[in-house]
Amino acid sequence: MTATEAKSANTMWGGRFAEGPDAIMTAINASIGFDKRLYAQDIAGSRAHAAMLAATGILTDKDAEVIREGLLTVLSEIESGQFQFQTALEDIHLNVESRLTQIVGDAGKRLHTARSRNDQVAVDFRLWVRDQCDAAISGLTALMGAFVAQAEAGADWVMPGFTHLQTAQPVTWGHHMLAYVEMLARDRGRFIDARARMNECPLGAAALAGTSFPIDRHMTASALGFDRPTANSLDSVSDRDFALEFLGAASICAMHLSRFAEELVIWSSAQFRFVRLSDRWTTGSSIMPQKKNPDAAELLRAKLGRILGANVALFTVMKGLALTYSKDMQEDKEQVFDAADTLMLALAAMTGMVSDMNANREVLAQAAGSGFSTATDLADWLVRALGLPFREAHHVTGTLVAIAEKQGCDLPDLTLAQMQSVHAGITQDVFGVLGVQNSVNSRTSYGGTAPVRVREQIARWKAALA
Amino acid sequence: MTATEAKSANTMWGGRFAEGPDAIMTAINASIGFDKRLYAQDIAGSRAHAAMLAATGILTDKDAEVIREGLLTVLSEIESGQFQFQTALEDIHLNVESRLTQIVGDAGKRLHTARSRNDQVAVDFRLWVRDQCDAAISGLTALMGAFVAQAEAGADWVMPGFTHLQTAQPVTWGHHMLAYVEMLARDRGRFIDARARMNECPLGAAALAGTSFPIDRHMTASALGFDRPTANSLDSVSDRDFALEFLGAASICAMHLSRFAEELVIWSSAQFRFVRLSDRWTTGSSIMPQKKNPDAAELLRAKLGRILGANVALFTVMKGLALTYSKDMQEDKEQVFDAADTLMLALAAMTGMVSDMNANREVLAQAAGSGFSTATDLADWLVRALGLPFREAHHVTGTLVAIAEKQGCDLPDLTLAQMQSVHAGITQDVFGVLGVQNSVNSRTSYGGTAPVRVREQIARWKAALA
Amino acid sequence: MTATEAKSANTMWGGRFAEGPDAIMTAINASIGFDKRLYAQDIAGSRAHAAMLAATGILTDKDAEVIREGLLTVLSEIESGQFQFQTALEDIHLNVESRLTQIVGDAGKRLHTARSRNDQVAVDFRLWVRDQCDAAISGLTALMGAFVAQAEAGADWVMPGFTHLQTAQPVTWGHHMLAYVEMLARDRGRFIDARARMNECPLGAAALAGTSFPIDRHMTASALGFDRPTANSLDSVSDRDFALEFLGAASICAMHLSRFAEELVIWSSAQFRFVRLSDRWTTGSSIMPQKKNPDAAELLRAKLGRILGANVALFTVMKGLALTYSKDMQEDKEQVFDAADTLMLALAAMTGMVSDMNANREVLAQAAGSGFSTATDLADWLVRALGLPFREAHHVTGTLVAIAEKQGCDLPDLTLAQMQSVHAGITQDVFGVLGVQNSVNSRTSYGGTAPVRVREQIARWKAALA
Amino acid sequence: MTATEAKSANTMWGGRFAEGPDAIMTAINASIGFDKRLYAQDIAGSRAHAAMLAATGILTDKDAEVIREGLLTVLSEIESGQFQFQTALEDIHLNVESRLTQIVGDAGKRLHTARSRNDQVAVDFRLWVRDQCDAAISGLTALMGAFVAQAEAGADWVMPGFTHLQTAQPVTWGHHMLAYVEMLARDRGRFIDARARMNECPLGAAALAGTSFPIDRHMTASALGFDRPTANSLDSVSDRDFALEFLGAASICAMHLSRFAEELVIWSSAQFRFVRLSDRWTTGSSIMPQKKNPDAAELLRAKLGRILGANVALFTVMKGLALTYSKDMQEDKEQVFDAADTLMLALAAMTGMVSDMNANREVLAQAAGSGFSTATDLADWLVRALGLPFREAHHVTGTLVAIAEKQGCDLPDLTLAQMQSVHAGITQDVFGVLGVQNSVNSRTSYGGTAPVRVREQIARWKAALA
Repeated sequence: MTATEAKSANTMWGGRFAEGPDAIMTAINASIGFDKRLYAQDIAGSRAHAAMLAATGILTDKDAEVIREGLLTVLSEIESGQFQFQTALEDIHLNVESRLTQIVGDAGKRLHTARSRNDQVAVDFRLWVRDQCDAAISGLTALMGAFVAQAEAGADWVMPGFTHLQTAQPVTWGHHMLAYVEMLARDRGRFIDARARMNECPLGAAALAGTSFPIDRHMTASALGFDRPTANSLDSVSDRDFALEFLGAASICAMHLSRFAEELVIWSSAQFRFVRLSDRWTTGSSIMPQKKNPDAAELLRAKLGRILGANVALFTVMKGLALTYSKDMQEDKEQVFDAADTLMLALAAMTGMVSDMNANREVLAQAAGSGFSTATDLADWLVRALGLPFREAHHVTGTLVAIAEKQGCDLPDLTLAQMQSVHAGITQDVFGVLGVQNSVNSRTSYGGTAPVRVREQIARWKAALA
Repeated sequence: MTATEAKSANTMWGGRFAEGPDAIMTAINASIGFDKRLYAQDIAGSRAHAAMLAATGILTDKDAEVIREGLLTVLSEIESGQFQFQTALEDIHLNVESRLTQIVGDAGKRLHTARSRNDQVAVDFRLWVRDQCDAAISGLTALMGAFVAQAEAGADWVMPGFTHLQTAQPVTWGHHMLAYVEMLARDRGRFIDARARMNECPLGAAALAGTSFPIDRHMTASALGFDRPTANSLDSVSDRDFALEFLGAASICAMHLSRFAEELVIWSSAQFRFVRLSDRWTTGSSIMPQKKNPDAAELLRAKLGRILGANVALFTVMKGLALTYSKDMQEDKEQVFDAADTLMLALAAMTGMVSDMNANREVLAQAAGSGFSTATDLADWLVRALGLPFREAHHVTGTLVAIAEKQGCDLPDLTLAQMQSVHAGITQDVFGVLGVQNSVNSRTSYGGTAPVRVREQIARWKAALA
Repeated sequence: MTATEAKSANTMWGGRFAEGPDAIMTAINASIGFDKRLYAQDIAGSRAHAAMLAATGILTDKDAEVIREGLLTVLSEIESGQFQFQTALEDIHLNVESRLTQIVGDAGKRLHTARSRNDQVAVDFRLWVRDQCDAAISGLTALMGAFVAQAEAGADWVMPGFTHLQTAQPVTWGHHMLAYVEMLARDRGRFIDARARMNECPLGAAALAGTSFPIDRHMTASALGFDRPTANSLDSVSDRDFALEFLGAASICAMHLSRFAEELVIWSSAQFRFVRLSDRWTTGSSIMPQKKNPDAAELLRAKLGRILGANVALFTVMKGLALTYSKDMQEDKEQVFDAADTLMLALAAMTGMVSDMNANREVLAQAAGSGFSTATDLADWLVRALGLPFREAHHVTGTLVAIAEKQGCDLPDLTLAQMQSVHAGITQDVFGVLGVQNSVNSRTSYGGTAPVRVREQIARWKAALA
Repeated sequence: MTATEAKSANTMWGGRFAEGPDAIMTAINASIGFDKRLYAQDIAGSRAHAAMLAATGILTDKDAEVIREGLLTVLSEIESGQFQFQTALEDIHLNVESRLTQIVGDAGKRLHTARSRNDQVAVDFRLWVRDQCDAAISGLTALMGAFVAQAEAGADWVMPGFTHLQTAQPVTWGHHMLAYVEMLARDRGRFIDARARMNECPLGAAALAGTSFPIDRHMTASALGFDRPTANSLDSVSDRDFALEFLGAASICAMHLSRFAEELVIWSSAQFRFVRLSDRWTTGSSIMPQKKNPDAAELLRAKLGRILGANVALFTVMKGLALTYSKDMQEDKEQVFDAADTLMLALAAMTGMVSDMNANREVLAQAAGSGFSTATDLADWLVRALGLPFREAHHVTGTLVAIAEKQGCDLPDLTLAQMQSVHAGITQDVFGVLGVQNSVNSRTSYGGTAPVRVREQIARWKAALA
């Protein structure tokens, strides 16, 4: 901090700090190091405030115009990299206002009328988080599109459906891809709901109690794209629900990404070989050409940690805070900034990986057919065609599987006579349900894995995403 | 486990476990100890399933009727405490089905047609969580009512508005109470949104791939009060978003409760004496009559820990799980059961405490007036009445406060002459804004603390809660 | 609560609660539902306290003897299931004391001299957590033994060493098993350190300030197996570090278990087939005989969530609590109880699984040799034997691998002439380092995978665990 | 990334990535943006490695010398700000090695013999965390000193001892200060234990399996100040326990800081006025001179969130990772960097705040005497002097307090006759225990609040900290 900066800080605070802040206090207290990221929101908020002050006669039109122009100058200085941020001015709000006053003179000193840093930071941060909801919605839409494209390419490719990472029943590649589209659609819904809930404008709450100036909060709310002003000034400056709800939605989304990332890591192993990731998202070894380390997938698997950590951090910060604003709440921004950056990067990387990956159709098909994966189809046929109770049909199937296992063959390889030796009622028709392709084709219940159902869902999603 | 139970378990599993589960495996694996809590949901799901199987011709009407009646018998056995839960039958699903078959014979063995434990547990748990959303919404509504009643009783009582637990500006008691109504209304909105998002029926997803039986998933969905069936069977059995979203909403709500609980603890101290909690929610000392330990408030302050812990637990469990069902997911229920019980109890206790508490109106008023809490009112007047720039008005105010401080008086006690000695333009009108009652009356901006505004909000909430 | 119970509660509290606690308050406030688990610790603490009161002349020897005998009676009533716990008596301390007074009469009323429930709960809970440290140490030792036994059985079996779940270099089964022994040894060290740090006796801190009775805190500390009494009475009743440190150590341990559990799940898949888990720790399908769901492994993978959740819960509870005791701290026990139970069960289950599992030695060996896994051995030989700089040796190796890949053979299958065509200096000796067995035998650096090193470590651990 | 950088990256990786990493992959994958912070550790590790390679004859002495000198040049370039970090070189290891080779030529290419990035990052990060343990120990020692100094200044000042934020018994200021010294001493013990446990050197584990070069791991371990080399190479590159244990200790420490921070916020309120914080650690209002916002205390109260968030993040990342190194683990550093920075800053700020704060002795004393805070002293006297059973003594005391309360006086103000009317045995001696100074003086049990005991503890701590 230069001497000039120190002086300016003292001036700003009314000169009460004879001792001056020392380095530790500055390090722990100043937020400009991170909240400068809110510059565009801060300037937009101030411009809306100035226009409203003029419209309500609190400022002259001329002062408001000078301020609004001056703020655009500050904006362009920041965006062009010319702006000198000063730690002694603590935060983005004082940095902007101080520079504004240098540029426009006395009018700048009138801007802070009928507002406070408490409602300023509340509106700035809320605008920023709202933008991140939009970015998440957009990133999710792109990723959903990538999964739908994969689903379309392989709507009828068979692959093992796993429970407990054990082959359970054959499913289709398209169906597996669409499972993630469902998850991401819920994520999108959560960001949409969060955005709607946070879309109330705290500007005009002033320090905490509202103001005696005849301000028009509906006007500023509208100018900044909010649905309405907040209804209680104490809550307006104390509330960080919008940040927590964003982090909650981001955490669930990151959990979804961690699940597909895990699948990619396993599927890329030499033992599985279900997919081949592109070189773009893997790293290699200079001497082991077969080694394609799925680095991006591993990093995406890990990102839940980072976002959940931010979520826990902010809950811990907010726990037990008496109303209204406490400085503890300054710990909100870095957590949300990092979580939002992480989420957007993760969505982009996953979109790239999903778009680039190649399923190994033959390996998938072979894996789908192993392990008597259509035994349940046989059992269901016994129920459906012969009217056996479910639990009895399972007993007959278990016996037939044991015979096939002994012979080292699969169920479709048994003869009709062998089948009838176990249950006399079995007919030639049974062979129509055995085999993986028959199996997946037969599961036509709504939401089932049959290609015909998968293609309906693909069509639905393509329409929805268009 | 009795020998009979062991035999019955072996039968159930097809006799593959020659060694039999030993005590450790039983302890870690069996869920009946906690998932018996889902009995009503499990039976409702089975009854809807049986009706649908009959309507689609998969079961005879007679079998379906026998099953549906038998399930009611099981239900009444459980509710009357006669039912013998068996650990060897692992979970609520097998316990119910096994008893059903004892009661109704072979028809019972047909119930499990076209479904699986995977979609059964998914629908049972989702129904349970949906009920908890309703309970939370109802508990929140009651608590909002209690805060509104407090607000109405003291719409114009003055109290200190704090930032940093330092008196900043006077506010009204009613305004402070309504700040919590805003928080709780957002909580309610989150539970409503979560409920709507989870209201899709997974029944019919079967093990993971759907089924070849001609089931009617829209019929079961409708019978169970769902908006529609889920659209992807893999997702249906893998999804626990609904539990995480419930825990997220519950965590934010618990954070709000922790904030008011902290205020109650501080306000109950001998130093603050802002409120008197009723004996009902405090404990005492047998020999120190003045000691009223705010035990319930302290416990409510702590409950965020419990709910957030459950939230973190379930995220950690779900991290990186490959599709579809893995046994890891069995760890979902105890966390959500405990968090939901905790939330409902906390809402009830807080409703009781808020209803019973008595604000100490005189102490609040006295505290509101200390510390030059209306200095900002003076500054605002200088801007509004004399047209001073905001930053200059602050300088004048600071000087006047310094004079008052030196004299040991408050701002309204200064003479007009003293005021004019600092700024000649000050007129007699200034005294109309000084004093805490004038201050709160003047803050009439939308959402502000003025009693007139507070009463409008009370009317709005009373209408909304009616 | 019966009328008699209510009366007794009122008596206990000095009759200050005219209104009486209602059901909600009882539900949220009473701890007897869970803290009865501390009965043995509570009685041990009271017996030590009574003996000390007699030794210091505060009680008569006769009263102390009557109390100590009466406490044994209470103990045997609890252990035999005869004891009637009463919710109206709130907690284990009042339940025990109340029953003691019924049994021994007036002497029982003298027991509470020079102590308080605050130091009583502190000593009870600390004794309980100390026992859990011992249980964890013992459980870890057993699990280490199981891993050492597996290591000994397969000290020289080769298997793939993975990075990124991609084969990197061959390693030995014994070496992989010992990696977990190292982790568990650190876990054990953490519990040992935690136990040592917590082993100070809070008894005698009384309510919070110590006491004016001439008590001998060193005597009670010693009688209860503590190293010394705590040195500050305020800290003694406010401290829950011992619980947090236990949860921290348990969380790291659970993380280790989650890693091996993940390996077991992957290794049990049809694609890997590295191990065969015993039926004891898996569940099957009644009709798919090959399906062995690794349920226990999946549950162990999930248990980190539960323990970490408890850890986060208690941190959140303790955050920002002013000294000394606050009722928030009552939320400590259920979290620690559940986490400790979970950890002990998880250690037992993992010990069983590790003891029972069978490595598929042939599959491991085959997997170890695929993918040019000894390319780094070749590169190292070029550096060591020919003096090539490391980065150049990698270039030569990469070229040779490319030739082998083109030919569809492995490195040992190349001729010397082919090798020399890439680098003329290569000699026949090179074949001595190629092949997986040569590779693992050569890695003899301290801590390396060579069987000779592995056997040294096995011997070290067997001695340490003996 | 410039074209030259791209070429250099391709060279480094053996040219396998024809497509080249695009911006997203670079953003998610490259670690140089944060791991450059490990430069000093990386260079120290490489220098030790080079010296060992020469001592074991793997490198010539001359090459080793050239490398060791070259590394010092790199070090000075980094420390003077001249070094150009290149994102295309991904991480600190390749950045340093690449620059080294530019400086010293071919010798630089020999440095990477018998090691891998996996053991390099393991040793670098462990050295960094070890340094942070030392910094934490040192910061804790300073803070303990500040609390001891406060304790010494007010060893016998009386203040209220609180439970539930309700006055319970009088204690001394010195005693309260020393409670925090106990907590911080345990924190210090945890960092000491963590440091000892992590003090094993992973260098020489190579990629994961050890190496066939005849390296001397004891030599590098010793050169870098480690107690010994790690004993299992797989564990060496997979282990992040040291980071988790550091975060665990840091979290408990931050929890302690949050508790005193809460006390400072409450004590600074206008209602409590127990302490006056210096201007250095507070911020003010330009127009409200009495307002001293305890910003630093509030921020310290919040810091637990940040550190606990990092703790949760790393646990989530490590959950369920199969051995050995996975890229997920790259998420370790930023969390630990931020947590360590936060902790060190928090310790420094708290040390400053504690050193600067002024207790308001008169206010403390007055608060200590209110609310019949010596009722327990009276009860204890009845037990001690008259031999009343504890529960009866409480009844007598309760009656006397009720009389005093009715009269509006305190216990010492009752006459002997009034006392004897409740219990005839009471003598004049009773007055010797009433009153706050008598009360604190009497609590002489070990660890009690009596000034004589407090001064003993101060002496013990001064000796220990000297």
